Amino acid sequence: MRILIIGGAGMVGRKLAERLAKDGRLGTREISHLTLQDVVAAEKPAGAKVAVDIVTGDLSDPASAPKLVASKPDVIFHLAAIVSGEAELEFDKGYRINLDGTRYLLEAVRQAGNKPRVVFTSSIAVFGAPFPDKIGDEFFTTPLTSYGTQKAIGELLLADYTRKGFLDGVGIRLPTICVRPGKPNKAASGFFSNIMREPLAGLEANLPVSEDVRHWHASPRSAVGFLLHAATIEGDKIGLRRNLSMPGLSVTVGEQIAALRRVAGDKVAARITRIPDPAIVKIVDGWPRNFETKRAQALGFAAESSFEEIIKVHIDDELGGRIV
Amino acid sequence: MRILIIGGAGMVGRKLAERLAKDGRLGTREISHLTLQDVVAAEKPAGAKVAVDIVTGDLSDPASAPKLVASKPDVIFHLAAIVSGEAELEFDKGYRINLDGTRYLLEAVRQAGNKPRVVFTSSIAVFGAPFPDKIGDEFFTTPLTSYGTQKAIGELLLADYTRKGFLDGVGIRLPTICVRPGKPNKAASGFFSNIMREPLAGLEANLPVSEDVRHWHASPRSAVGFLLHAATIEGDKIGLRRNLSMPGLSVTVGEQIAALRRVAGDKVAARITRIPDPAIVKIVDGWPRNFETKRAQALGFAAESSFEEIIKVHIDDELGGRIV
Repeated sequence: MRILIIGGAGMVGRKLAERLAKDGRLGTREISHLTLQDVVAAEKPAGAKVAVDIVTGDLSDPASAPKLVASKPDVIFHLAAIVSGEAELEFDKGYRINLDGTRYLLEAVRQAGNKPRVVFTSSIAVFGAPFPDKIGDEFFTTPLTSYGTQKAIGELLLADYTRKGFLDGVGIRLPTICVRPGKPNKAASGFFSNIMREPLAGLEANLPVSEDVRHWHASPRSAVGFLLHAATIEGDKIGLRRNLSMPGLSVTVGEQIAALRRVAGDKVAARITRIPDPAIVKIVDGWPRNFETKRAQALGFAAESSFEEIIKVHIDDELGGRIV
Repeated sequence: MRILIIGGAGMVGRKLAERLAKDGRLGTREISHLTLQDVVAAEKPAGAKVAVDIVTGDLSDPASAPKLVASKPDVIFHLAAIVSGEAELEFDKGYRINLDGTRYLLEAVRQAGNKPRVVFTSSIAVFGAPFPDKIGDEFFTTPLTSYGTQKAIGELLLADYTRKGFLDGVGIRLPTICVRPGKPNKAASGFFSNIMREPLAGLEANLPVSEDVRHWHASPRSAVGFLLHAATIEGDKIGLRRNLSMPGLSVTVGEQIAALRRVAGDKVAARITRIPDPAIVKIVDGWPRNFETKRAQALGFAAESSFEEIIKVHIDDELGGRIV
């Protein structure tokens, strides 16, 4: 089978590509070709068992999507997006890539005619405060960012193209991915990962909010698991409501830190500084805190059940099992 | 103030234009200009107290919206749409007019820079079965038609453009408008009106479903009332959740007929024939039946509270008070 990953150079795309290249199969089917698309050249996974093509291009160019799907991939992972902060600052760019780009892709797939599974990564940003204690599967989408709006529109298009039989879409709303590997970045959500990753690597990291802030997390390994499951699940089991909030773990920052202390000790936890940042406090205040993801769980999607587990995934997958 | 009605030749657009032209004011403000746009020339309301311009054009032409808003109207009513059945048969045309056309309009308004109130008519078609007994204000939008998808996307765009301060939008989800004046048409929902309007005019009409079918109605007069209220309500009172299900009346077809009998007598009600149509039965089965519209009611939107009232509105407004 042929697999196309759009947004293959991003953190989740890279991990997904590594996993597929290593497994050489998706579900019961052998992979013949894996194409990794992004605006910058994705890295070819080391030791790939399958043919890997690296393609660079801009999905907001109407000529891009038809070329990408000309080989009629069996499964398409659409992970490409302008992230939340940038889409908020650059209104036109966000709509051009996150909305137009997605529409070009769906339309190109329709024209190609082979009805592939299309896995679309949506986001909990489709929801906007005020929320119930737990956001259920039938809660409405009233995003408070342009990014969330664009993702919610992508979900609607995916469902309609699926209903019309043009493709076989599954949209998954990812929790905040934690512990995110790499360097600290300026995303408002960055601290959730920073305060775990940096201390584990022997460095200081700042907590800009209070310890009672609650948020919704899953590990990068779970994110890849969601994508693989979304790619292989039977469409009939999902029905016409094609967009699903993924399972995750609802914890407070205080619970994150307590888990870090249990896993790595007081010395590591002491590397967290506490300088409040009112701007981040305000942004985080509008974010979802907890979900009830009955549908996704009934369909077999699963995430971590403790934050210790999330930390251990990071230590295993990123630090070779070793804490500084 | 200047008012622009996009879709001014349709049934609701015509009634709205007549009301505005007759009143000469909207809320506390005097109307100087009223522009009626549609793909066909709208009729100029008789005895208009205000200057009326008739403009023909196609909103799916990117050049159309910038011209329409060049005079910086203070209030824009966006009623134009390819209807449900046609959008389902003509996928590209539906998206071109209902999605692209709406986006061109919002973008042209943003570029004009005067931040007008934009009243967008959405539809209960944004909801898709299965439903709770009553669809509440926070129920999710999973449309089962392309039309419903396009309206749900329009709602999301309207809310985002409002949140960004580019315009001041209010989206209203209209119930099925009943009793719809004019000739019977092929819309699957047509019979709800046909079985009232035709017998009142001395003609037969067929009921293609069983009498226990329940549906959600408001009169054309209420629809105009919703639009006027949406045009004048304070935006701050609405907050950022800019799309509202309008109040209506949930009745069964049997209750409609009983009301007709009470208002117009057995002779009129006997003009209803009963030949089942399995295709219409199936379509209607997926439609919303009842709503709980707390938010809209708290904001002052109001509809009829009995079907007798809906029938009497028709007799007053369309039949000059006279039943055949």
